[in-house]
Amino acid sequence: MLNPSKVMESISVKLNQNLIPDQIQRLEQQIEFMIEIDKLKQISRKTILTDRSREENSAEHSWHIAMAVFLFSEYAQDQGIDWYRVIKMLLVHDLVEIDAGDTYCYDRQGRQYQARREEKAAKRIFEILPPDQSRSFRALWDEFENRETPESRYANALDRFQPFLQNYVTEGQVWRENNITRRQVMERMQTVFDGAPLLWNLVKLFIDDAVQEKYLAG
Amino acid sequence: MLNPSKVMESISVKLNQNLIPDQIQRLEQQIEFMIEIDKLKQISRKTILTDRSREENSAEHSWHIAMAVFLFSEYAQDQGIDWYRVIKMLLVHDLVEIDAGDTYCYDRQGRQYQARREEKAAKRIFEILPPDQSRSFRALWDEFENRETPESRYANALDRFQPFLQNYVTEGQVWRENNITRRQVMERMQTVFDGAPLLWNLVKLFIDDAVQEKYLAG
Repeated sequence: MLNPSKVMESISVKLNQNLIPDQIQRLEQQIEFMIEIDKLKQISRKTILTDRSREENSAEHSWHIAMAVFLFSEYAQDQGIDWYRVIKMLLVHDLVEIDAGDTYCYDRQGRQYQARREEKAAKRIFEILPPDQSRSFRALWDEFENRETPESRYANALDRFQPFLQNYVTEGQVWRENNITRRQVMERMQTVFDGAPLLWNLVKLFIDDAVQEKYLAG
Repeated sequence: MLNPSKVMESISVKLNQNLIPDQIQRLEQQIEFMIEIDKLKQISRKTILTDRSREENSAEHSWHIAMAVFLFSEYAQDQGIDWYRVIKMLLVHDLVEIDAGDTYCYDRQGRQYQARREEKAAKRIFEILPPDQSRSFRALWDEFENRETPESRYANALDRFQPFLQNYVTEGQVWRENNITRRQVMERMQTVFDGAPLLWNLVKLFIDDAVQEKYLAG
């Protein structure tokens, strides 16, 4: 296993010989962050790939929904939003799972302590960054979690829509394994209604079909 | 294995009953695209994860460099660029690998036919989209490939920097396996100099160290 702080120590010594001092710490912290977040590629989610070969990981999920920002932009509730900030929010929003793991959205027990675990993770991970970036990444994460701005409502809609679509397309394999009901999914998908009402039409249709096909318990 | 066109056929029938006709085809195409690109999560690259457990895939790579856009933005050669377009370019740039596969950057034979394979892939994949989006996604891909705008130069710099960093941090495991030389890496990293000259300082330093540590052939 790699020890990022050991790598950074050796980088630091070499940087000291070549850069002006006040750039050094800043760059070190950014490189350490870049290495640290590689771990997100190892965090498994409950959602499976459309070919059903394996679970997807959080980095893949974040990539997919970031792409969805401009693929589905016309369906966002508010059309005058800062799309760049939406994407940044989506790329950053799952980083806390490096420490806190992915919590299955229908796992009541797991979700009880999720906020506390993620808060602790956010503190550790964002503090790797230089102070100004630490604040701006943390602000993106908070904005996403609080769902109070139009940008965060659209971001949250996509964060729910992508795994929903993959569940539907894989004939509800994960829903069936976990005895998920129509009611649970309807409740969770309200977020799509808030941020992207036209996509919500599609979601309703898929939910009806999923119940009929027995992908979901009625 | 999932058959996306069969899924879309069934979706189509259901949509027809619920949406106005001119929205239907457009939404169908967008959903089909969203499902199609899931395949990028199965395209392996030569770069390994920092914990050396496996190769990374192209979706993970795209996520990592999209994040790098705002992590390293202060090092971009041109500070007045459209950062949102840089991110879109990076999220889209590897989609052609769904058909064309990842070509190792030091594989001369493979690279000979790479352009033709990728051109064919771009045609098929972007044409899944509604015409206006098909054009805009294709334009992003072309812009990235041509490296003529400041946005694309910064995007290309990050596309080279991230795997370079992972190679360095894993003690050049993949470089060593493929007998890669200092000269090859220096040549490939010129792109970092063009798009993010301050990061290039770091790259040079790491290359010197990589040679000294025998991660790279001198």
